[in-house]
Order: sequence, then C-alpha cells, then structure tokens
Amino acid sequence: MEPDRLAGVLETLRVRNPLVQCLTNTVVQGFTANVLLAAGASPAMVDNPVEAPQFASIASAVLVNVGTINDETERAMLLASDAARRAGVPWVLDPVAVGGLQRRTTLAVRLLDNAPTVIRGNASEVMSLAGAEGGGRGVDSGAAAHTALDQAVELTTRTGGAVAVSGEVDMITDGLRTVRVHNGVPMMTQVTGVGCALGALVAACAGVEKDPLVAATAATAILTVAAERAREKSAGPGSFAVGLLDELAALSGDQLAAGVRL
Amino acid sequence: MEPDRLAGVLETLRVRNPLVQCLTNTVVQGFTANVLLAAGASPAMVDNPVEAPQFASIASAVLVNVGTINDETERAMLLASDAARRAGVPWVLDPVAVGGLQRRTTLAVRLLDNAPTVIRGNASEVMSLAGAEGGGRGVDSGAAAHTALDQAVELTTRTGGAVAVSGEVDMITDGLRTVRVHNGVPMMTQVTGVGCALGALVAACAGVEKDPLVAATAATAILTVAAERAREKSAGPGSFAVGLLDELAALSGDQLAAGVRL
Amino acid sequence: MEPDRLAGVLETLRVRNPLVQCLTNTVVQGFTANVLLAAGASPAMVDNPVEAPQFASIASAVLVNVGTINDETERAMLLASDAARRAGVPWVLDPVAVGGLQRRTTLAVRLLDNAPTVIRGNASEVMSLAGAEGGGRGVDSGAAAHTALDQAVELTTRTGGAVAVSGEVDMITDGLRTVRVHNGVPMMTQVTGVGCALGALVAACAGVEKDPLVAATAATAILTVAAERAREKSAGPGSFAVGLLDELAALSGDQLAAGVRL
Repeated sequence: MEPDRLAGVLETLRVRNPLVQCLTNTVVQGFTANVLLAAGASPAMVDNPVEAPQFASIASAVLVNVGTINDETERAMLLASDAARRAGVPWVLDPVAVGGLQRRTTLAVRLLDNAPTVIRGNASEVMSLAGAEGGGRGVDSGAAAHTALDQAVELTTRTGGAVAVSGEVDMITDGLRTVRVHNGVPMMTQVTGVGCALGALVAACAGVEKDPLVAATAATAILTVAAERAREKSAGPGSFAVGLLDELAALSGDQLAAGVRL
Repeated sequence: MEPDRLAGVLETLRVRNPLVQCLTNTVVQGFTANVLLAAGASPAMVDNPVEAPQFASIASAVLVNVGTINDETERAMLLASDAARRAGVPWVLDPVAVGGLQRRTTLAVRLLDNAPTVIRGNASEVMSLAGAEGGGRGVDSGAAAHTALDQAVELTTRTGGAVAVSGEVDMITDGLRTVRVHNGVPMMTQVTGVGCALGALVAACAGVEKDPLVAATAATAILTVAAERAREKSAGPGSFAVGLLDELAALSGDQLAAGVRL
Repeated sequence: MEPDRLAGVLETLRVRNPLVQCLTNTVVQGFTANVLLAAGASPAMVDNPVEAPQFASIASAVLVNVGTINDETERAMLLASDAARRAGVPWVLDPVAVGGLQRRTTLAVRLLDNAPTVIRGNASEVMSLAGAEGGGRGVDSGAAAHTALDQAVELTTRTGGAVAVSGEVDMITDGLRTVRVHNGVPMMTQVTGVGCALGALVAACAGVEKDPLVAATAATAILTVAAERAREKSAGPGSFAVGLLDELAALSGDQLAAGVRL
C-alpha cells in the first residue's frame, strides 16, 4: 500500500469531518471523543437502545466496543449495528476482553452477524472471537499480532470486511491482502483507551474511505505515527496522552506518509 | 452589564464553594468535575433516581444534561429537577442534541415543565427545544447564536428564567435583557465537553447569584476568558484542555473584568 | 513501619503487575485506570452483574467504589465482593459520600458483610459507615482523619482488615497498629478522583502484599509522594493531574522510601 494513499485518507477526514457514533465503554468515552476531534472527526456517543439505531442510519460510521456493557447498551449495540448494516453505514467491532468473559463473548459473536466492516482487537481477542464460533480455541493473552493471522482471515470470510490486529507490529488483513504497520511506542499500553481510540479512528477512516483495509491501515498509521511524535516530547504516560492529542491535531498528510513504516 | 458584576460572581463562587449536583453525560463527567473544582465549586455526580431528588433539595444548584441518557438517569433527571424546583434550588438544563433525536427531545420538553433557571445550548438545540413545543421548527445545525434569539425569548416566557445560546459570539437573554459575550477561541470546539462544562459552570454561578442572566453571563465570561489565556500557551487540543483547568483556577476577578468583551 | 517495606511493595507491584478489577464510579474510571497503569498495575473495569463475580475470583484484587451506582452496578458490587471473599481475593471498599445518602449507605453496610480487606474513605465516610451500623452517629464533613480513629478501629473488628482514613494527615489502622502518613498536597483535592484512585492503588498493593495495613500504607505513600513531586512542576490542577501520572510512573522505591514521612 502506498503511504500517499494513507495520507489521502487523513486529508479527506479533515475535509469531510465524518460523524462517528460511538457505543463504547464508559472508561474511555472522553478520551475517545478527544482523539476523534483531534484527528478531524465528529464524535457522537449515542448509546441508548431507542436513539442508537436511529442515529446509526445517519452517521458516517459506527463504533461498537464491548468493554463495559449493561442491559441497555447491549441492546443498543445489537440494534445500532443492525441499522448500520441495513443502511450501508460502515461499522467497527472492538471485542474488548472477548474470550475470558462469557457475556461479552456471546454478544460479540451475535454482533458478527451484522457483518462489521472492520474488527479491531489484539491477537487474543481476535483468536477468541474466531474460536468462539468454532468452539474454543481459547485465549492467548499478550501474543504477537501475526499469530492471529489465520483466525483474522477466517473472520474476514465471515464478515466480508477487514480485521486489524494490534500489537507491537500491527497487522491488518482483508483475507486477500495483509499489511503490517511497524510504528508505535510501548507507552501506548500505559495509557487507558489508546487501543479503544484506535477502534474509533478506524471507524472515522471507514466513514471516508470505502476500502476497509485502507481505512484500517490509515487509522493505525495515524495513531502510531502521532504516538511516536508525542513520545519524544513526553515525560511519562500523563504528558504522553496529552501530547498524543496535540500531535494528532497537528499531523499533516506529508508527515504521515513520511513517518509510516509499512 | 458591568464587568465588575461578573468579577463579583467569580469571587463569591470562590468564597461560597457551591455544591453543584451534576446529572450529566458519561462522556464528560470527569472533565466537568475538574472544571467545577478549578473554578471553585464542589461537584457531586449524584444521578440515580433514588438519591438524585434527595440530593437536589440540599444542593446549591443542579445541572441536567441529556447527552447520554438511560432508563435510570432519565427518571433521575425528572425527579431531581422537580425536587430542585420545589426546594427553590436553581437548576440548569443542557439539551444536548435535542431536535435530531426523539427520546431526548421528549425528555427535554418534559423537563421544561420544571422551569429550569437557565437553559444552556447551541442555536440548533435552543431552536429545537422551542420548536418541539410548537411543533417542528426543526434543527439548524451550526447556526450563529443570534439566530435563535426569538426562540430563546419564547423559552424564557415559559420558564421565567434565562437562556444562554453558545456560539462564536455567545448570547444570553432573560426575555427583557440580552447580553452578548465576544470571548472564546475556536479550539473550545476541539475538546469534548467544553460546552457541557459551561452548563455546569452556569449552575455553579446560579448557586451564588440570584439573577439568572448575570449567573449565565458570568459563567460564560469565566470559561471563555480562561480559554483565551489557555490558548496562548497550548500546542494543540490536548494541552489546551489541561491549560484551561490551570487558567480557570488562576483567573482573578480583576483579570475577568479586564478580559471580558460584552 | 520501615520506609523500605513500602518501597518493597512498590517494587513488587512493578514486577507482578497485579490485575485490579474496578467497580467504580463513572466520573473517575479513566483517571483511575491511568493511575493504576502508571503505578504498574493492570486495570480491568468489569462491572456488570454477569461478568463481575466471574472476574473477581481470578483478579489479583478488587475495588468497589459506590460513587455512582445504578441497579446493575449495585448488584455487580454485591456479587463481586462476595466472589472475592470466597476466593480469598483481597478487596477494597470506598464508601464515597456514605452517610448523607441513604441508598449507598444501605449498600455499603451490606458490603461490609463481605469483609473488605481495606476500607478507604475520609473521616466523614468512615464515621458514617461505622455509625450506620450502630444507628446514626452521623456525618462530620471535612473532619481530620484522626477524629475517626475509634470508628475505624470498630470497623476493623468487624472486617478483620484495615481502614485507611484520608485527610491532611492520612491515618491507617488495623485495630492493633496505627500509622500516619504526613505527605500530600492540598491540590489533590482540586482534581476529581484522586481519592478514588487511592482506593484503586490500595487494591493494587493488596494484590501483592498480604498485610492490609502495609498495603494501604504503601498505596497512600506512593500517591502522596508522587503528588508532592508533581506539585512542584505544575501550574494548576490541570497540569498537576497530568504530572501526577508522570511521577507515579517514574517514582522509584528509593525515592519513595526517602520521601515518605510516617
């Protein structure tokens, strides 16, 4: 994939300002909204079961993150992803901690039926999500992204979309093509919600770019290149999180193309 | 309105440390609490239907923000605003995204019956809230504050309070008097919850100042003057949000009176 | 207590990376997770009634903070603390605003039956929690920590654990031994969630240190020493909160031992 293609997604994002509906966990809602705003998207955290499906059909893209679910948000997630699918609105599934916990695993498997445009998770979550269907390949916590390639490909055959596996090296596949992004810094794991914010950025990019593989790769590149720039100026995880927002807002398409290592 | 009057509200806020109950959306709860603390108020996010009305009758002021509602918080908002009204406690309604979404629009219209001391929203929300009663004048997203003057005045005749319309120029009216505040910076729209935090600050000021127009104008001036000071020192939306809290805590009454442009 | 003992807890925390399940209020979830990550623990905000008890039995420690409860999280708290007790997993109760509000007071008293390893609150909350059992000794808001010594000791006889009372001087007791920590800065009260994050840090330390008194004292020392270091570099509450995370991540065992004033 050409770095200029990814730069183009960032520039389009800034021009089109996509409306990204987030049904996400309560831990990271504020940070997620700020990441989206900094990158150039418009967040809307509409997550109740009455309004969520209504909004999903008019949003540019939808994020469903199962990190902290309750009866109402669970229903909202099922209804919103269904509405998005029917309306042709791209939507992203982030299967946080799927595998170890039964309720969210059951929910995530049901959400698969609504054909997420992109699934964004770590290797454990992707393996569990694939395994949960076939019956228990289980969790492999902390595993490198490439170890989940087979399961990621299997999921794409089911959804027709892409799967982005986060790790030290990020891997994105749509079943036919596989891209690796070598950017990022370890401190990204010391701030809560960086992975969840990546899911939201994938949704934002999918709101302006039809090819799910390109959208997910662009989002990964945007976040990890900005993180590298923020890390240089930060004294620890607190100032890193602040700097990440500053760098996301300042990142140009040229800087993205020059900085990404595919 | 004399700038010194606004400075007096800030100084009283610091001395009296009003207890502000916030029933607000989960995206901005943390930032809202930090804005209130920085300005000199005491936040209390009591938002369940059992405790909310009990607390509302002893709080200095109450904020009701309909950004992320669920069955329990919706009931809590109706009960708390009713308790505030009965107890003579000032309360502020922030009709986030009212107009486009039916559930919160219906709720906001019901909340109007409890006569909010101040309504704080953007032009679209204020127009929709007024229109929803009369039947569908609809949403005008991104409109300048002054375009909502007629609807704002109409709402004051219904509530007997004030309406603060946020925009590039903020407009506050109680139906008889109209004030404009020309402060603020565009970056306020790149940080989630700045508008919501303004609603909370209006409540804090209403907790120490009887005149709703003065309270809402003081809150608007405090936030926007602090934002201008923070913008000068910030590198982007991340450091701006941090600096806004620092500047709110440091802002003196004299600086406020000197900086506000009415 | 030897300062080196506390340094040893911090160093063990960094090595063992305890998994801390947080059932905490929605205002402070993000900040709490970031404090735990900065200190070296792994947060998991699993707070629904289906998954919470399952997770509690495999976590290193559990935090239950009653700041913003609803029907589902209330049930989750009762189930998770019961599961933790049965599995021998240490758990911490933070009785936010107990005393003034009936619903959470009733809940906190029921939670006492599950024998929290440590109770972490301010003097008012500790007095109310003890008083609520005996019948109404009431709230004494803003009181110094030592004024709650009798009630703290009474609670330890009931739970068999420790009680940490926060204040200008922090007091920790297990009924037999009482420790005071003289560190900290007033600005800790100008940032939302610092007290709540202390409760989470107590849980993290209890996940690696069997003696509840030592765990609670270590957590108090870690947070307050880091706060003193952050205060020196900050311009106000915004930059203080950011710096606190940076300093928590950077704090060494030697610095902790040298800085703590018992």
